[in-house]
Amino acid sequence: MNRNGRGRQFFFNPGPTNIPDRVLRAMDRATLDFLSEEFLEIHSACHEGLKRVLKTRQHLFVYAATGHGAWEAGLVNLFSPGERLLILESGYFSEDWALMARRLGLDVEVLKADWRVGVAPADLEQRLVADKGHAIRAVLVVHNETATGLANPVAEFRHAIDRAGHPALYLVDTISSLGCFDFRMDEWGVDVAVGGSQKGLMIPTGLSFSGVSEKALAASRTAKLPRHYWDWEMMQARAPQRFCGTTPVHLFFGLAESLRMIEEEGLDAIFRRHARLARATREAARVWHANGSGPELFCRAPQRLSDSVTALIMPEGHDAETFRRTAINRFNLSLGGGLGPLLGRVFRIGHMGELNEPMLLGALATVELALKESNVPHGPGGVEAAIAALANR
Amino acid sequence: MNRNGRGRQFFFNPGPTNIPDRVLRAMDRATLDFLSEEFLEIHSACHEGLKRVLKTRQHLFVYAATGHGAWEAGLVNLFSPGERLLILESGYFSEDWALMARRLGLDVEVLKADWRVGVAPADLEQRLVADKGHAIRAVLVVHNETATGLANPVAEFRHAIDRAGHPALYLVDTISSLGCFDFRMDEWGVDVAVGGSQKGLMIPTGLSFSGVSEKALAASRTAKLPRHYWDWEMMQARAPQRFCGTTPVHLFFGLAESLRMIEEEGLDAIFRRHARLARATREAARVWHANGSGPELFCRAPQRLSDSVTALIMPEGHDAETFRRTAINRFNLSLGGGLGPLLGRVFRIGHMGELNEPMLLGALATVELALKESNVPHGPGGVEAAIAALANR
Amino acid sequence: MNRNGRGRQFFFNPGPTNIPDRVLRAMDRATLDFLSEEFLEIHSACHEGLKRVLKTRQHLFVYAATGHGAWEAGLVNLFSPGERLLILESGYFSEDWALMARRLGLDVEVLKADWRVGVAPADLEQRLVADKGHAIRAVLVVHNETATGLANPVAEFRHAIDRAGHPALYLVDTISSLGCFDFRMDEWGVDVAVGGSQKGLMIPTGLSFSGVSEKALAASRTAKLPRHYWDWEMMQARAPQRFCGTTPVHLFFGLAESLRMIEEEGLDAIFRRHARLARATREAARVWHANGSGPELFCRAPQRLSDSVTALIMPEGHDAETFRRTAINRFNLSLGGGLGPLLGRVFRIGHMGELNEPMLLGALATVELALKESNVPHGPGGVEAAIAALANR
Amino acid sequence: MNRNGRGRQFFFNPGPTNIPDRVLRAMDRATLDFLSEEFLEIHSACHEGLKRVLKTRQHLFVYAATGHGAWEAGLVNLFSPGERLLILESGYFSEDWALMARRLGLDVEVLKADWRVGVAPADLEQRLVADKGHAIRAVLVVHNETATGLANPVAEFRHAIDRAGHPALYLVDTISSLGCFDFRMDEWGVDVAVGGSQKGLMIPTGLSFSGVSEKALAASRTAKLPRHYWDWEMMQARAPQRFCGTTPVHLFFGLAESLRMIEEEGLDAIFRRHARLARATREAARVWHANGSGPELFCRAPQRLSDSVTALIMPEGHDAETFRRTAINRFNLSLGGGLGPLLGRVFRIGHMGELNEPMLLGALATVELALKESNVPHGPGGVEAAIAALANR
Repeated sequence: MNRNGRGRQFFFNPGPTNIPDRVLRAMDRATLDFLSEEFLEIHSACHEGLKRVLKTRQHLFVYAATGHGAWEAGLVNLFSPGERLLILESGYFSEDWALMARRLGLDVEVLKADWRVGVAPADLEQRLVADKGHAIRAVLVVHNETATGLANPVAEFRHAIDRAGHPALYLVDTISSLGCFDFRMDEWGVDVAVGGSQKGLMIPTGLSFSGVSEKALAASRTAKLPRHYWDWEMMQARAPQRFCGTTPVHLFFGLAESLRMIEEEGLDAIFRRHARLARATREAARVWHANGSGPELFCRAPQRLSDSVTALIMPEGHDAETFRRTAINRFNLSLGGGLGPLLGRVFRIGHMGELNEPMLLGALATVELALKESNVPHGPGGVEAAIAALANR
Repeated sequence: MNRNGRGRQFFFNPGPTNIPDRVLRAMDRATLDFLSEEFLEIHSACHEGLKRVLKTRQHLFVYAATGHGAWEAGLVNLFSPGERLLILESGYFSEDWALMARRLGLDVEVLKADWRVGVAPADLEQRLVADKGHAIRAVLVVHNETATGLANPVAEFRHAIDRAGHPALYLVDTISSLGCFDFRMDEWGVDVAVGGSQKGLMIPTGLSFSGVSEKALAASRTAKLPRHYWDWEMMQARAPQRFCGTTPVHLFFGLAESLRMIEEEGLDAIFRRHARLARATREAARVWHANGSGPELFCRAPQRLSDSVTALIMPEGHDAETFRRTAINRFNLSLGGGLGPLLGRVFRIGHMGELNEPMLLGALATVELALKESNVPHGPGGVEAAIAALANR
Repeated sequence: MNRNGRGRQFFFNPGPTNIPDRVLRAMDRATLDFLSEEFLEIHSACHEGLKRVLKTRQHLFVYAATGHGAWEAGLVNLFSPGERLLILESGYFSEDWALMARRLGLDVEVLKADWRVGVAPADLEQRLVADKGHAIRAVLVVHNETATGLANPVAEFRHAIDRAGHPALYLVDTISSLGCFDFRMDEWGVDVAVGGSQKGLMIPTGLSFSGVSEKALAASRTAKLPRHYWDWEMMQARAPQRFCGTTPVHLFFGLAESLRMIEEEGLDAIFRRHARLARATREAARVWHANGSGPELFCRAPQRLSDSVTALIMPEGHDAETFRRTAINRFNLSLGGGLGPLLGRVFRIGHMGELNEPMLLGALATVELALKESNVPHGPGGVEAAIAALANR
Repeated sequence: MNRNGRGRQFFFNPGPTNIPDRVLRAMDRATLDFLSEEFLEIHSACHEGLKRVLKTRQHLFVYAATGHGAWEAGLVNLFSPGERLLILESGYFSEDWALMARRLGLDVEVLKADWRVGVAPADLEQRLVADKGHAIRAVLVVHNETATGLANPVAEFRHAIDRAGHPALYLVDTISSLGCFDFRMDEWGVDVAVGGSQKGLMIPTGLSFSGVSEKALAASRTAKLPRHYWDWEMMQARAPQRFCGTTPVHLFFGLAESLRMIEEEGLDAIFRRHARLARATREAARVWHANGSGPELFCRAPQRLSDSVTALIMPEGHDAETFRRTAINRFNLSLGGGLGPLLGRVFRIGHMGELNEPMLLGALATVELALKESNVPHGPGGVEAAIAALANR
């Protein structure tokens, strides 16, 4: 291990992500009474700011929990035992959400897809049309499949649901898309948007939340799964605290600063920055692959290449975990590994949140250096291609 | 509001509590991959350290959640819908835990008590003896009732259960006692010890945990309440991560430092320090009350006066909330308020965690100053009595 | 040593002083190019802000140095070898400044005084009147003698100089008065005001500065003592950097935040706060002394009792250093010791900068506790008197 | 300005340099009494550690000052008015040191040299041989000329002095070499080694110091330049404080942590790291220049290319300041500019202190990106050459 090595670790995992110094400093402070006027103002500003990021004017519930907690909150607030959900397969995280729903007693149907391509809107439409009796209570989609770097077309799926004339609730996991690329809860008719703190929001793990539509809130009133910690009704009743137990004030200190940074830069500028850096990453990858049989983009759907994470599949005979260890141990570059069946075959570059050109170029150049050190074949000129991509704008 | 007033806020709420600078600094750092060897070592050290604080060699499960989350985890892992629990009334928090259990579908019986005195062990024994069929699946006790400053005798209740020969599980909420005064999970036969990060452990809110006995773990295998986020079996299966979703590494950075501080000082020394500072607080309160009809100790059971929080009931005709506003707005001293039916009648001085003589004396002297400013009657000499109590040791 | 003891150290030395968390956080950041536009704006704001605190519209020079560096800067910029200065005796620091001037080759005359009383304005007037040939080139005064808690009347000395019709330059050391109690450079005709960072300005030691009048700047042009690091002409020539060598950007980051805090509270409010807290300190001391032969105020001139530091002389037979060790080792309270001939006889309570009622009361109560622990005689009721003084306003 | 741009600033100025987070955190703490046992231990450890870095067992004096302060300290402690010094021309900083010496009243002779090459040891030897009467009291050399990226051969100059049999004192400025590449005060017979905090020592500007030989200390006893703040005799007399005025404890907190990091990595490993990163920088530069008439290495002496800073001279017709503004404003990359006559012609890449491969590669790739954006000609493949240089080891 290179722990005593000098210099900053380059952190390019797809979550948690780099925490800006401004956020760390905002959290490096004495605590406050969570019921004090001073904190409640911060709390309230965070709620308003998060709703602007989600692009919703409807409801928001925040939990002291990981993103999986917000997954569970959506399920237990909306459904009764045995109800059917349709989840669109995209990869490790769609599988994991389905597993959770099953273990909570729900009947989960998976709309199958190739992980490198994802579900076609027409397939969703067709399945919903076939559901004459409206047994399907909800459609669940992972906006950005963090495990594969595939971004699902949330608006197109909404249109498919509408075309099918199906009343299902629409639940979308925005954990690794929110604050990275476009998401519009109200405009796209999303009923529950699931989000977490540690990706595009750039704060430590520990807060997650649900944007909730009026329709979903109404549905929650008749849902029978037992719940208390996650219960939206209880949370509404506890205004202005809106929390089950002690409010985690430090995470809100961080969130308040992160939201200030987001508003200073502007969501549109943030999305353009992510698109620019993602494109440069892909250009490097294409050159490594095309010019020398190097690692290849995992996602094969050009319109679905994610702007927040790029997954690369290793050339045959080369182990992604060995390569990742070289990157971290020799050069202090932290990359994401493959999840589930992709372990050892895929490595992932997170390019979301607190990031700029020199950071990304440093990471890409170090990937190239680590490929050399690991004797992984790759075409020359990947970094030069990334530089050129960033210059042509 | 005195927000621009100069000088450090004196924070004497009974949770969250003062976070040591060492802990804040340990959290003020770049993130780590939660699956990296470097983090897993920190993670593992935290588990071992927490178990030493709980005085258990059995199991531990940690959640990204408030303390209420750990309450819920204990309930959903152990019970099936409709099962009966017996909860010992102590105050606001025993009521709140009972409410949660009911909303999760359990049948909760409350063993009634005067909040200023609490349940007698003999009453518990008698109730359990009467439960011939062992319908009661568990006994629930709040070790330290944060709302009233009453510490329940956990070991004596254990003896009462044993004398009754009752097989009920024994769940104890140690949220505001752990790391403040004596608690011994294994020796006292506690099956689930519920703890949180933001009191005696001196770190921000957001982590909570359950110490779990073998007996409880076995019981969880047949429990039918639906669960996933809190599920102990799932957490065990996810070793070494042991977490549902992304591990909140920053809270563990803080916990690791806090546990180092606890081991440096030693639990016994920590308990003596809390006892000494609590006694000084009570001496001040007795003088304020006895010498001038000032605020009075809420807890009337001398053996149950808490070493982590002291609740004082205001003289008739004086509003506790008005007094608290004077303390915070004029003198930057944050005190706890009354909860539930005690709102306006009680204020609370938290004296737990990161605390020493000058901090406590500064708070007590400022309470006396704020009593003067608020024209609340009180005997003279309270602070001098506290000084004398600290000198006589 | 109590280093592993829990809880915040109470720091009541008369310099350095408590650094507000806001200032520490402002300094906890990556560096900047000291010639960048971004830094030059911060730099310039600091110059403007410091001038407002000094109440001058004339010149300011800032050094990377301790306060002694600014002493030396004033001397080497203004004088030629062998020139005569008149320094008003006040205590350890007037002696130390005189020593420096002598070692730099100047002819220093000390206007003698009892350290517990200080020089009378009439004595200064008389001495200057006697200096028919105006051999005395400058009058030097320490505004607040940090070693004894005596505040010199700078405006009255100005009047004495004027009444004598003497053209001497007027140099005033404001190191432990600036930002604590009233100082007006231009209105009081001060030619050089010497200041430092680590007292009323509440930032770490390492920056010091001179407010310089037009008259002093003109005088510097003919002064012959060799100089470069401290040279005002060189510093003016290096605008906008205005520094010899690399600008210490982190100290300016701290200063900028400290000046923001000062402007938020307002100098008048700051002075009232210091006066209030100083009065409470003296009330406690009077009771300790009058009611029981305890430590006594060192300064015997009622009009000159300092609002930033109080020096107490121990009862006969009791060693101040032993007492201080008890305070720090048993109770984590840091107090100042006696300097020079006062070592062992005097201890000092600094009450300047980042301070409020609970902090001061905590310190005073702990002084009383440490007096008890050390078996130093003292009247009862000191802290109660301080509380009463703070309530009567 | 890109101030609201997201992501960390890449700071590649040749001083101040990147401050490690560990150092910033070590400084983000409450103050200490500078005379307390706790601080004096830290202070003493810093003195011992600094002497190990200087490789001396002789004397050390530390100042609250910039590096220029330590320059001045060396001069005023060692010399009397009118004495002659011989300074070896290397660039802006040798000129600036000479200017200071002249203004302090010394007679400075400059041994002339081309800034792109520096003085030859034989020229020094010849000049000293010619000084039959030993009028030259000292030889002054800047070890690493920060303005040009030229490293002087300090050991070879020592040999030249010895060959000439000349008794001159030997003063060496190690400000931008110490902690970056090899320096051995005692072995190389250096009498005064001048150092500063903000380069290889990786802490904020504000501390500087002199390593002082026995011979120099003896010489100081007869030196006549007036001094007090910098006076070594006074500093020795003030042991254990060893400071004129209040010790700047926060800078020592930082220094203590920095020295811990240096000892953890080891000076030899640190030097190898600097050599490796410097070589990669030069490889990139050579390709930019050779393959396309891009910026060229300023230093033309292959053996003197600095391992801590690389200066590049722009192609004819291109302004270095315009290019630097693009780098900082568009891409948040801070580079050094040309000093004195090199302003606008040269830009500088500092590669010293807290640095690793991804940081350097990110900077070099961004230089290339900024060259493209600024339409500065340059050969393709610079970054690829740097990557290759780092892989070949």
